[in-house]
Amino acid sequence: MKRAPGRGLFVTIEGLDFSGKSTLVGNLKRALADAGCRAHFTREPGGTPVAERIREIVLDPAAEMDDRTEAYLYAAARADHTRGVILPRLARGETVVCERYLDSSLAYQGAGRGLGIEAVRRLNALAATLVPDRTFYLRLDAAERERRALERGEPDRLEAAGREFTARVEAAFDALAAREPQRIRVLDATLPPDELVRKVLTCLAARPEQRETD
Amino acid sequence: MKRAPGRGLFVTIEGLDFSGKSTLVGNLKRALADAGCRAHFTREPGGTPVAERIREIVLDPAAEMDDRTEAYLYAAARADHTRGVILPRLARGETVVCERYLDSSLAYQGAGRGLGIEAVRRLNALAATLVPDRTFYLRLDAAERERRALERGEPDRLEAAGREFTARVEAAFDALAAREPQRIRVLDATLPPDELVRKVLTCLAARPEQRETD
Repeated sequence: MKRAPGRGLFVTIEGLDFSGKSTLVGNLKRALADAGCRAHFTREPGGTPVAERIREIVLDPAAEMDDRTEAYLYAAARADHTRGVILPRLARGETVVCERYLDSSLAYQGAGRGLGIEAVRRLNALAATLVPDRTFYLRLDAAERERRALERGEPDRLEAAGREFTARVEAAFDALAAREPQRIRVLDATLPPDELVRKVLTCLAARPEQRETD
Repeated sequence: MKRAPGRGLFVTIEGLDFSGKSTLVGNLKRALADAGCRAHFTREPGGTPVAERIREIVLDPAAEMDDRTEAYLYAAARADHTRGVILPRLARGETVVCERYLDSSLAYQGAGRGLGIEAVRRLNALAATLVPDRTFYLRLDAAERERRALERGEPDRLEAAGREFTARVEAAFDALAAREPQRIRVLDATLPPDELVRKVLTCLAARPEQRETD
């Protein structure tokens, strides 16, 4: 994998629940470590002490809150994570792989909760100050998602979110990917794990180096 | 105090530390209760279960966080408080008196932390969906503030914030008041408590009724 001499690559992994984000991240971690590549793996919300405290609130199923509050809490955590962890590591030339970033807020709060994708984008203006160099969107159709939820004995997680909500989130991820095909690579989440890792690594390797003359 | 038949008055109290906000609020509470006026008193950050949890983080001196995160956390709490408490009570015709609201974020995070007043205003677009009907800004000059801090044995609180930071916050409150003289009434915080309450009540009573024909 080629990296720019000055700044590391910022890679994000997106997708709905059950799409295999964590499995892909685990496999990528091993593959990059084997290749001797310095990479930092992280996920949102979280990554700094204060962002972990925010994570506890925002992911607490007992915490009732306004949809706007949810959007602000994700942005609050993102601002700390971006400036406290991601930017410094990129500046040191490390690759940073982050599970979920701004696209998740656009899809979940913007489309899922109905706050509006552009309103949530504006809300994040001071938080998501980075655009990922490359985003991998693990796409899984609804039938396969239900099959996986049943297989894992977690059908409640689909019910809790609501099928209409999930459909709006998925449609938003699809639209974001269609709008930014250069940045967002759609991956068929039903592919074997090894093949997914290979596709990601190939895609990152094929990426032209940036700022070589910085 | 006259109130519109449809909607209650939204009143905010602003000012720096040691300006006597809590004393004024306590006295107002008594005066309005004596007059048989249904009024709800609240303060930011807080006012709902999730906003109180956010308050614990944002006011924890041990919690280090990016300035942007601080601004987002105040907005997160404000969104829940506004929609969960303030709007429903105003809709029921109650007067709501809130200690600190958007102006505090503009002054503290916008000017004090240097994020920019307009950037923080935009950040709050989904949070501060209300404009107060009337805002009372308790103004106290730096010398008097220091005298009060010493008197209360809390000079550390001034030091912790930093005199330059405090000066920026104060200048921002002054500028906001100058920009919106119809909404923001500047009160000399060195006046006797009784006189301050009287001024506030007179000002609210003199306010023309709104939406009488709603």
